[in-house]
Amino acid sequence: MTQEPVRSPDNPIRVGVLGARGRMGTEVCRAVDAAADLVVAATVDSDDELSRLTDAAVEVVVDFTNPDVVLDNIWFCVAQGIHCVVGTSGFDENKLTTVAEWLADRPEVGVLVAPNFAIGAVLSMRFAELAARYYESVEVIELHHQRKLDAPSGTAAHTARLVAAARARAGLPAASPDATTAELAGARGASVQDVRVHSVRLAGLVAHQEVLFGTEGETLSIRHDSLSRTSFMPGVLLGIREIAGHPGLTVGLDQFLDL
Amino acid sequence: MTQEPVRSPDNPIRVGVLGARGRMGTEVCRAVDAAADLVVAATVDSDDELSRLTDAAVEVVVDFTNPDVVLDNIWFCVAQGIHCVVGTSGFDENKLTTVAEWLADRPEVGVLVAPNFAIGAVLSMRFAELAARYYESVEVIELHHQRKLDAPSGTAAHTARLVAAARARAGLPAASPDATTAELAGARGASVQDVRVHSVRLAGLVAHQEVLFGTEGETLSIRHDSLSRTSFMPGVLLGIREIAGHPGLTVGLDQFLDL
Amino acid sequence: MTQEPVRSPDNPIRVGVLGARGRMGTEVCRAVDAAADLVVAATVDSDDELSRLTDAAVEVVVDFTNPDVVLDNIWFCVAQGIHCVVGTSGFDENKLTTVAEWLADRPEVGVLVAPNFAIGAVLSMRFAELAARYYESVEVIELHHQRKLDAPSGTAAHTARLVAAARARAGLPAASPDATTAELAGARGASVQDVRVHSVRLAGLVAHQEVLFGTEGETLSIRHDSLSRTSFMPGVLLGIREIAGHPGLTVGLDQFLDL
Amino acid sequence: MTQEPVRSPDNPIRVGVLGARGRMGTEVCRAVDAAADLVVAATVDSDDELSRLTDAAVEVVVDFTNPDVVLDNIWFCVAQGIHCVVGTSGFDENKLTTVAEWLADRPEVGVLVAPNFAIGAVLSMRFAELAARYYESVEVIELHHQRKLDAPSGTAAHTARLVAAARARAGLPAASPDATTAELAGARGASVQDVRVHSVRLAGLVAHQEVLFGTEGETLSIRHDSLSRTSFMPGVLLGIREIAGHPGLTVGLDQFLDL
Repeated sequence: MTQEPVRSPDNPIRVGVLGARGRMGTEVCRAVDAAADLVVAATVDSDDELSRLTDAAVEVVVDFTNPDVVLDNIWFCVAQGIHCVVGTSGFDENKLTTVAEWLADRPEVGVLVAPNFAIGAVLSMRFAELAARYYESVEVIELHHQRKLDAPSGTAAHTARLVAAARARAGLPAASPDATTAELAGARGASVQDVRVHSVRLAGLVAHQEVLFGTEGETLSIRHDSLSRTSFMPGVLLGIREIAGHPGLTVGLDQFLDL
Repeated sequence: MTQEPVRSPDNPIRVGVLGARGRMGTEVCRAVDAAADLVVAATVDSDDELSRLTDAAVEVVVDFTNPDVVLDNIWFCVAQGIHCVVGTSGFDENKLTTVAEWLADRPEVGVLVAPNFAIGAVLSMRFAELAARYYESVEVIELHHQRKLDAPSGTAAHTARLVAAARARAGLPAASPDATTAELAGARGASVQDVRVHSVRLAGLVAHQEVLFGTEGETLSIRHDSLSRTSFMPGVLLGIREIAGHPGLTVGLDQFLDL
Repeated sequence: MTQEPVRSPDNPIRVGVLGARGRMGTEVCRAVDAAADLVVAATVDSDDELSRLTDAAVEVVVDFTNPDVVLDNIWFCVAQGIHCVVGTSGFDENKLTTVAEWLADRPEVGVLVAPNFAIGAVLSMRFAELAARYYESVEVIELHHQRKLDAPSGTAAHTARLVAAARARAGLPAASPDATTAELAGARGASVQDVRVHSVRLAGLVAHQEVLFGTEGETLSIRHDSLSRTSFMPGVLLGIREIAGHPGLTVGLDQFLDL
Repeated sequence: MTQEPVRSPDNPIRVGVLGARGRMGTEVCRAVDAAADLVVAATVDSDDELSRLTDAAVEVVVDFTNPDVVLDNIWFCVAQGIHCVVGTSGFDENKLTTVAEWLADRPEVGVLVAPNFAIGAVLSMRFAELAARYYESVEVIELHHQRKLDAPSGTAAHTARLVAAARARAGLPAASPDATTAELAGARGASVQDVRVHSVRLAGLVAHQEVLFGTEGETLSIRHDSLSRTSFMPGVLLGIREIAGHPGLTVGLDQFLDL
């Protein structure tokens, strides 16, 4: 992504990376290092004290760690006035409520929790939601490598739910028109709130999704291809740059996009 | 499209179709006939008097005629308090100014002038504009049948200009990164305000466009396929239904979409 | 298609069209009329006598009629030494055997029976068969308009069977690798001889198919888009031009392609 | 790729890797190590003696080195009866002639020189060649990352030449039909023997190519996506396994595919 810097190279945002030696943490360090307006001021791994963050005057922390420790990390940061950008998985309603309570006492601190940092995934979902009311038909195809365990992907299921809600708001029927009378089991895909979702698993693929809309004489498709985990980095950097300006709890990177 | 009706079948909007025997006019008549909340109250062709519209108590006129007569038609309708939905080509700044002046005297009348009534084309352009600021790279590919005279298409050139303006607003460089040092003439496409546009001409195609965005590790593509001129009808019907609620001059169907 | 003519405009092949007023028959007449080396010498509909064919010295008959009358038509033509190009559906093994027996007595006559005359569909299937042995993974996506009754399409199921047979010949496992442990019912599509097939139904589409192959670091996809029933005509014309040179019974247009 | 092994794990083919520490050489070592029927018997880099190959009883050498040394390497191997699989770039007619002369004296030795080892690229080109005669229209779109220096890519130019030759053999005009009268310079792409080629450069892409064919009412597209240099490995392994069975000089991996 090509968000303009919010701070100058002379006065970069001081970033702390939690889980810095993990797969995602390593990429975060690399991406922050490469950005002129940001600097890695401290790294913390499982053996390290969180006080490294305060010692280094960190302003924003990025947390790609694991569900067991993420709350402890956030508690420390909020208490110390450090903003948080969190990509650790398994962040359920309970955890969100807990963080919101902590933030009530520190209203100047911002915490962003996002399930998907790829800008393209976030934009795809938003565009799908906007387009849904204008088309009779919609289906989702997601395509991933052959090692993926779940079908459909979490992002595809979430997209289908967003589209279903948009159809309902527009007074459209839940299901798209479909005259199928003879179906070989599974051919028409899975139904997520009456939106059909198809999951392709293929060696050589990484992570891809296409939302197809159709009406009389025309179709519209929105496709996102994610070819490496570096695709999350522009979204992480956006989070780092924007979080200070968004105190309180934010769920989902789309809140920081200008859509 | 699946816009909810604004009027009941018992009290349909009374539509007049100008150029009713032309290619587009024929489709308009068919589409209006098929809509429960609309009725074709009058048709007018080159030999007919415009008074047929007032005789039939027409509320909204659809004009797919030709550049020579379109202004006369609009003048008559505005004077009579009939709203207008205009798809006739060649509607330049001068004509828009003229119509705006007429409307100043009749502020309750609405006139919609739209260069492209395909919902998908309108959505594509809007989404491209929204996505542009988040990607380093963007290119446009448009694909049409082999009988098309101009390259690139008007819609592709317009899309490129919208994207260029969005990049400028976001502080992005006009041109996407490109290391090409050895180019066979034309390989890299045409440049429209520094956005590369490629035109494919192929028997068997109709009208298609893809806007490709890319940044580190990911791409986003927005594709519109128009397979017949019936694809314009949902947009025309939307215009008919919405125009009474939008007095004054409106340019572009996107103004009636909820984006 | 752009097959070179086999006969000169001065001496065109004399074609008889059975079911000439039907949807396909109408297109056949139009396509034959437009070809310099062919001429419509006779048309026959349900009320007409077959003797019109012999009266007009027809050389090749095209039959897009219906399952009830197609055998009677072929019997007459074979007996009269007229070659046949047959696209009528429901041509099962019994019918093929019957025709083969008739042809045993008239070895100079040719009959082509083809389930799909679109050149692109035929090429797609052949290429899929050729590619199958070189890839670990393969899936089929077919996309049609919302009025289609069966899922998957006959062509998709046939493609899957061809691919499955090619994998078996190459010693590949029947199923592509797939780590899915949690599946929402139907997400992974239908299984046709262990090849996954996905059926999309969408307003605005016509008839489309994509075969996706994948292996380490790369994918190959073969896509066919059929936008109108005129797409069958090049294949029908190829059949008309080639049938005299292929006496006996031929099943499938691919036999006449140089692949 | 899923070629069956030609040798058992107890008796693997002994492979020597030249340029073993280079980008491609590293991948070759990894891929050979992972194959049960092959073993890395020797590695050679710029400081090493070629005698390491004979000391280790190498049967097949893989050469991804550089244009300056590749001929010396091949000379040594041919003289020693070692088969060669060569992917080093810049292998022109002169070099091919030289190698062919050396092989005249050692008819039992095989040398494969291939410009592209991705199976999908090889299949794409072959399928494009086969399809060309059946379509009025053809264009090539290649899409690469923004750091690529040449446009179009070598593979795209080669594909265009193959397609042009196939059209010529079928008696088709060199150029596809095109009514363009008003073109913004470059919109219609580059012309390679009258075949239009379009080059897209986009951050986030790797290496992709699509060949589009069209005729009345239908299109066929053949797309190859290469997402990492590991995509070359199945082709390299195929070359290693097949070369002993193909003595003499072979140019192009397609000669070893069963197409």
